[in-house]
Amino acid sequence: MRSGSDPDLAQALFAPRAVALVGASGDVSKNTARPQRYLAKHGYAGKVFPVNPTRKIILEKTAYPSVAEIPEAVDHAFIMVQDVEAALEDCGRRKVPVASVYSDGFADRGADGAERQRRLVERARALGVRLLGPNSMGVINLSGRAPITVNAVLEMDAPPVGGTSLVSQSGTMLGTMLSRGAARGLGFSKLVSVGNEADLGVGEIVDLLADDPETKVILLFLETVRDARALSAAARKAHGAGKPVVAYKLGRSAAGEALARSHTGALAGSDGALDAYFRDCGILRVDMLETLVEIPPLLENRSPGASKRKPRIAVVTTTGGGAATVVDRLGLQGFDTVSPDGRPIVDLTMASSPEKYLQTLNDLLAWPECDAVLAAVGSSAQFHPDFAVEPIVKAKRTAKPLAAFLTPHAERSLALLAANGVAAFRTPEACADAFAAYFSWRAPRQPKCFSTPQVSLEEPFALVRSLGIPVVEQVLARAPDYSHTVPYPVAAKILGEHKTDSGGVILSIPHERDFKFAVQQLGRKEVLVQRMEAGLAEAIVGYRDDPVVGPIVLVGAGGTLAELYRDVRIRMAPVSEEEALEMIEAVKGLAVIRGYRNLPRGDIKALAKAVSAFSTLCFIDQVSEAEINPLIVKAEGVVAVDALLALKTDASGRA
Amino acid sequence: MRSGSDPDLAQALFAPRAVALVGASGDVSKNTARPQRYLAKHGYAGKVFPVNPTRKIILEKTAYPSVAEIPEAVDHAFIMVQDVEAALEDCGRRKVPVASVYSDGFADRGADGAERQRRLVERARALGVRLLGPNSMGVINLSGRAPITVNAVLEMDAPPVGGTSLVSQSGTMLGTMLSRGAARGLGFSKLVSVGNEADLGVGEIVDLLADDPETKVILLFLETVRDARALSAAARKAHGAGKPVVAYKLGRSAAGEALARSHTGALAGSDGALDAYFRDCGILRVDMLETLVEIPPLLENRSPGASKRKPRIAVVTTTGGGAATVVDRLGLQGFDTVSPDGRPIVDLTMASSPEKYLQTLNDLLAWPECDAVLAAVGSSAQFHPDFAVEPIVKAKRTAKPLAAFLTPHAERSLALLAANGVAAFRTPEACADAFAAYFSWRAPRQPKCFSTPQVSLEEPFALVRSLGIPVVEQVLARAPDYSHTVPYPVAAKILGEHKTDSGGVILSIPHERDFKFAVQQLGRKEVLVQRMEAGLAEAIVGYRDDPVVGPIVLVGAGGTLAELYRDVRIRMAPVSEEEALEMIEAVKGLAVIRGYRNLPRGDIKALAKAVSAFSTLCFIDQVSEAEINPLIVKAEGVVAVDALLALKTDASGRA
Repeated sequence: MRSGSDPDLAQALFAPRAVALVGASGDVSKNTARPQRYLAKHGYAGKVFPVNPTRKIILEKTAYPSVAEIPEAVDHAFIMVQDVEAALEDCGRRKVPVASVYSDGFADRGADGAERQRRLVERARALGVRLLGPNSMGVINLSGRAPITVNAVLEMDAPPVGGTSLVSQSGTMLGTMLSRGAARGLGFSKLVSVGNEADLGVGEIVDLLADDPETKVILLFLETVRDARALSAAARKAHGAGKPVVAYKLGRSAAGEALARSHTGALAGSDGALDAYFRDCGILRVDMLETLVEIPPLLENRSPGASKRKPRIAVVTTTGGGAATVVDRLGLQGFDTVSPDGRPIVDLTMASSPEKYLQTLNDLLAWPECDAVLAAVGSSAQFHPDFAVEPIVKAKRTAKPLAAFLTPHAERSLALLAANGVAAFRTPEACADAFAAYFSWRAPRQPKCFSTPQVSLEEPFALVRSLGIPVVEQVLARAPDYSHTVPYPVAAKILGEHKTDSGGVILSIPHERDFKFAVQQLGRKEVLVQRMEAGLAEAIVGYRDDPVVGPIVLVGAGGTLAELYRDVRIRMAPVSEEEALEMIEAVKGLAVIRGYRNLPRGDIKALAKAVSAFSTLCFIDQVSEAEINPLIVKAEGVVAVDALLALKTDASGRA
Repeated sequence: MRSGSDPDLAQALFAPRAVALVGASGDVSKNTARPQRYLAKHGYAGKVFPVNPTRKIILEKTAYPSVAEIPEAVDHAFIMVQDVEAALEDCGRRKVPVASVYSDGFADRGADGAERQRRLVERARALGVRLLGPNSMGVINLSGRAPITVNAVLEMDAPPVGGTSLVSQSGTMLGTMLSRGAARGLGFSKLVSVGNEADLGVGEIVDLLADDPETKVILLFLETVRDARALSAAARKAHGAGKPVVAYKLGRSAAGEALARSHTGALAGSDGALDAYFRDCGILRVDMLETLVEIPPLLENRSPGASKRKPRIAVVTTTGGGAATVVDRLGLQGFDTVSPDGRPIVDLTMASSPEKYLQTLNDLLAWPECDAVLAAVGSSAQFHPDFAVEPIVKAKRTAKPLAAFLTPHAERSLALLAANGVAAFRTPEACADAFAAYFSWRAPRQPKCFSTPQVSLEEPFALVRSLGIPVVEQVLARAPDYSHTVPYPVAAKILGEHKTDSGGVILSIPHERDFKFAVQQLGRKEVLVQRMEAGLAEAIVGYRDDPVVGPIVLVGAGGTLAELYRDVRIRMAPVSEEEALEMIEAVKGLAVIRGYRNLPRGDIKALAKAVSAFSTLCFIDQVSEAEINPLIVKAEGVVAVDALLALKTDASGRA
């Protein structure tokens, strides 16, 4: 990937002066006729050259047998033929800077396809042609009237133009988002289907959009993340340019993950790691598809919050029951709803007027005790927008978000709100989802000063020790007498088989007289003897160089129950002790050492220190995965009782 | 509440021959003018009598000073005046069988209001007038063209008529549901706003709808359940009549619960208990508001499933990316998606025709390996319904559900599907929510033979013992020497202060020589000495006569972590041992005794027996709450280590 954004590339991709349509058809029932029809229909001002060796005229335009024979310069070729390679050669010969490839049969089709794609990219680089796709539905530039796409959504007349741009790994989603937005008066600027991302990837497109003056909010529809560094850099650049980036990502369930893989040939990462990654880059993540359509006005011209208090939302309403649906959902997302008189809603049902409504909204927008204002509008939204919708439009614009939830079917009111840049939600669920995304929105994390640790990679405990994390007192005891110096009670473990389910561990051997008998049961010539450590809680601390997002660090409650409940927090590594503390605070099961029910407090600081130290493994290239499980948390200090280390060079090493 | 359904009541409520509008206004800008306008607008065939002492003519009809002075018989009075009491007296005098009361200021307004309501109902009963409300927006009978309501949704022209009826505790929701359905071509039959349910409640309305030939599916919008027995009986009757009942209930979050309370003056029960209740009555529960609008065609003419296998859904698609959003969401709900070739979707993107599409749908509907078929339709849904939407309409109707998810904005296709009775979903989330509700749908539970247990209510352990559940070996030990006969190791507890956070417990006293010192630390003259029991897991077993839904039984993983994760299952009491086993299977944390990671298996049967025995407390009127926590589960048997009992007559008793 190139660094920085190339204005010529942006022009050729989004606003070409001349487009070649390779494989264009004159049969309007065919997909391959669409790009030419759509360019004409939506008023494209540049030149269009259909390319097809079997036709002289296609849809009233002169057709050319190949790109090479087009008599003028071409900025952008849209390739829809099987022989993509030949078309690419022609593009190279004619110095076409960008080729979008609709054709499939590349990384989307097995190992042979992947190899074909590798060769295609190699050749494109040699020829100086940038590739979008293959397997891309193309680029739609609505503000520039350049829809270079086969997506049927362009059958629509005059879709509204707006400041939102979309980068999608699914071509279908261009139509989904555009049509759903259009029905609501929510306009788009650019929509890009990146297909297989053989060359131009999500990251580079976001980078271009960060520089695009018409783009205010960037939406991502992702099946995976193929180049985490590129996207991270681009998201940071977009943040610097005041442009929020929002992601909807598939693959949260195992089924969705399998589908993402088979559909795109991409490696889908674990969802928790992706959450950590998005947070690290300052990318908001939404849970529901419709939220992606509805959230842009909530974000435009706003910045990520930094408040540490639990967000409070004031809900103003003319409809008790309707408001209750959204208040309930906000509650499920962990928000408090507040009002100056202490009730969960500000109820204007009775005796209200548009003036009173507007005054109430402005008062709440100025009220320091709430962090957002939501207007829940009832049946008046359908037939009398003047009553409760127009006041929302007229309310003062402040840094505090103002949004609307309309209970009836009320297209006119939704369009009115959209036209005035007010976020409006059709469902309580998407509304709460949008607020959840908004309030967890953080600025991209700034790199902090960390020093590369001096570590031993000899074996797991050596690594743990070298990171300054205390390790349980332990020795190897050998047959025949298994003598050792560890004070009782002790545990005896078979080396490399520490898991509870393998039967390779005997805990709590109280006394020397019981030891030999116990150890003989393990049936090994060598056993690890450890002092039994009693703490207040067990934690797990993990590190992994994730194949999708890169180095991550994890902390969770230890033990079998915690494993069953998947109660862990993940962040991109490295993390400071302060950040580690935040992670620990968010682990439910560690409440037992945070003062829950007057239980004795554990040394959370020492745990945070261990998490931070472990996270610096990101500076040690050889480490693939490392884990302490359990790390015993005591009233003072922590102690590692079991550890694991996997290096990239060899298979895996366990203590 | 009356038992059974009264055809005269149904007629007066839904299809009155004459309506009196008490407090009708001629000023069309007023809410009180609406009922008369709406009756005229929507073609009401009966007689309308506006009642207003200050007017002679209202909207071209003769007005009467009071109901008493109307010269003809009136079936239904809609009361919109402050002096509800006087209007009621008039109704009584004229033998008006039903009065719907829009006016508020009753149970919705504090203790005085509640008292006013009590008196109103008492008087209505004496007069023989049935009341809907107060605080009701009225009744809309679309199929019978009788909209007796102030809800502005009736400004709409010709809302579609269908087989779905709604009973709502929020008047606003009549408009929300009707307008949202209408926009989609989903029609309604009856919509009832029950308001404060002073007399006619949700249960009795459902009972009437169960007998209503025009109603096929019954939807409930609930803020609470005020009469659990009435609703349960009515839901069972509806089930018998082949009419699914679906509930959306507020109050899942603490905030929503508070609002439900303040909004309706009702007592909202705990959400887990309500889940158990709905399941017991055969009521489906949906999570999202839009699901309530969209689910009826999925249920009409279908019965609850009973399959024990994990439900499998075949997803047919012409759009990989669009289908992935719904496959991902179905996966999050715990469903497998299947296809005959083993891939997660049946992909018809390439080389398909409407004929092939139809054939594929019919093949899947006949394929025994899937339990439902979902067609995910891409951009063609917007402009070419013939391609992938019409085949769905033409597919064979079977007992197996067939539904559609449309990725673009495609109103025409949604309406086409609705008109043909095919469930269609706008969002992947509501689609997955509907399938989750459908597949957890069970027939109402049949009462089984349980015998009333002979129990001792003297103290908690006596109760536990009398239910046949083993209790830990224990004795009271007294100062000065605290002698006892319990074998070591033992635990010592202060009576009535067993909780970990109170410091009233000393566990694992290994030997007599440590005992006296330990016990003295507790500083009591009397302590409970228990044998230390070591088991494979701790469980909690609870019973509660819930104020909203009635007797419930609970089982969960015991201990602090399980409490933090709220990992419990609740069912209506009593439950058989078999049902208790199902509950136990669903408790995540109890996986540790179900063979997880080769851990030794606990005596789940003994646990189930204890749960079932505990649940029979529902036959003992005096018991308010009882709990064993922990119940130690061993390889063989269980043993109760701590217990609690609260009787209704006294405050609370702890062992």
